[in-house]
Amino acid sequence: MAGLDTPLTPLRFLERAAEVHPDSEAVVDGDRRITHRELAAAAQRLASAVRRSGVGEGERVAFLATNRLELLVAHFGVPLAGAVLVAVNTRLSPQEVAYICEHSSSRILFGDSDLLAALDDVDLAVSEVVDLDTGYAEFLDRGIDEQLPWDVEDETATITVNYTSGTTGRPKGVMYTHRGAYLNALGEMHHQGFTHDSRYLWTLPMFHCNGWCTTWAVTAAAATHVCLRAVRGEAIWGLIDDERVDHLCGAPTVLTTLATAPEAHHLDRPLTVVTAGAPPSPTVVGQIRDLGATLVQTCRWRVREPG
Amino acid sequence: MAGLDTPLTPLRFLERAAEVHPDSEAVVDGDRRITHRELAAAAQRLASAVRRSGVGEGERVAFLATNRLELLVAHFGVPLAGAVLVAVNTRLSPQEVAYICEHSSSRILFGDSDLLAALDDVDLAVSEVVDLDTGYAEFLDRGIDEQLPWDVEDETATITVNYTSGTTGRPKGVMYTHRGAYLNALGEMHHQGFTHDSRYLWTLPMFHCNGWCTTWAVTAAAATHVCLRAVRGEAIWGLIDDERVDHLCGAPTVLTTLATAPEAHHLDRPLTVVTAGAPPSPTVVGQIRDLGATLVQTCRWRVREPG
Repeated sequence: MAGLDTPLTPLRFLERAAEVHPDSEAVVDGDRRITHRELAAAAQRLASAVRRSGVGEGERVAFLATNRLELLVAHFGVPLAGAVLVAVNTRLSPQEVAYICEHSSSRILFGDSDLLAALDDVDLAVSEVVDLDTGYAEFLDRGIDEQLPWDVEDETATITVNYTSGTTGRPKGVMYTHRGAYLNALGEMHHQGFTHDSRYLWTLPMFHCNGWCTTWAVTAAAATHVCLRAVRGEAIWGLIDDERVDHLCGAPTVLTTLATAPEAHHLDRPLTVVTAGAPPSPTVVGQIRDLGATLVQTCRWRVREPG
Repeated sequence: MAGLDTPLTPLRFLERAAEVHPDSEAVVDGDRRITHRELAAAAQRLASAVRRSGVGEGERVAFLATNRLELLVAHFGVPLAGAVLVAVNTRLSPQEVAYICEHSSSRILFGDSDLLAALDDVDLAVSEVVDLDTGYAEFLDRGIDEQLPWDVEDETATITVNYTSGTTGRPKGVMYTHRGAYLNALGEMHHQGFTHDSRYLWTLPMFHCNGWCTTWAVTAAAATHVCLRAVRGEAIWGLIDDERVDHLCGAPTVLTTLATAPEAHHLDRPLTVVTAGAPPSPTVVGQIRDLGATLVQTCRWRVREPG
């Protein structure tokens, strides 16, 4: 009977957003603003170019990038190509990045110019390196106008591999399935309270567990991603005010940056701040609440062993 | 790899609600108020009694009941017993009810006293009939204190069979799977906007597609069910006011009852009204909005053929 069920995959979130809310804002990244229809088209284009670059089903594609439009597109476009996304922690050493590229057998490494520049002295076991700031448009030119299906045959196929930060040895890869990513994204959507009107600020790195699957959860609600390249108080508060941000996430250190920035001020609109990792101190909790924000602390309900 | 995934089932919603929010209100039915811990215990007790009455894995248990606590408990307790719930439309003729009992091979028929009384002249192909108003406590006495697992081995197993209303011939049975019910409930939770604080009024019959899966969706959010035995304006408005209801669903006819009741008045709190089926007329849409309620009309995005 399993064959009667449509496989679960976050790809369906973007397919739906593009059909039901084609003209609403999907992503803001600096001066760039795209709709759900355009986000879907960008993912299709990337997927086509990835395939035509010789990346096969289940092969890996690595990104070493800040929280930018291209990395968000990759969360849909790479799996749409049938490939697996490896979003690499930008704070790792060049040797660790090289290790992850090799260990994951990544075929292509995409990256921010300055992040790639730091890799000049290491050997990279990839077929190709694409600079997102200078070579991305040319890469996309390999793609053709095709409509790949927003679907997978097997929902337990791998969608991403995320590496640990290597504090207890070499980074270890964790495989996420399409099914797991879909379900976790729905959980994030509910607990963060995303609706179609939400505007989510990317204070959490997309490379960190795919932004707790918020890369997909925001789009599941057909809401708006607001990109943020670096966690600085001025930029955060500028976007909260100018882009009417009402949701953001972060470790306690991000909360401290938010609360202690010179630009910090009492909010006149709702803002939901979700934190996880180490518990925030009572001081930080008080600071966030004093801003007029709602603080949500996520915790693990229970982990079940399989079978 | 599928074996590594925990099977999807709405049973997990109640397990979680009872663990995370044990003391918050799960159901209000007239003077009866129970918490999530008590709802979980009631489902366990029913499941135990159903099993000890000889109902085997995958066998069917029918309910001919109004929107009462016992029918809500049955949405969890019957599947918890490994059995399949058949919630019968209370507006069908005695012959149609008898047909559904026979066609579904239901082992037990539970029902409201007055609904069962109407079946006196028909042959019922069930082993046992239990009157929810006079014989339910005695039935539960067969159960023992056991903790059945909130789990299924196969998520594609049937959880309920819902029959059509027979407008084009005999009623036809539609099988819902644990997986389908789980996913549809999450969809309802999102689109109706249920949170832990929501208070949902049962203007929609629970027998109608399991209340659009809202029987499970409200509990998925660890929110509160407010039962309603009959759709009458006075009762609806009494519960909206006294029980601080903020969500309800119904076909356009329910909306008309809501808007045209003598007790209707402008709301001083948010109320989300979700409608489906025939589109509501502009008059009804205007009336609902004039109350200060938010109207959500659900529509089918797209039906995909398998494979």
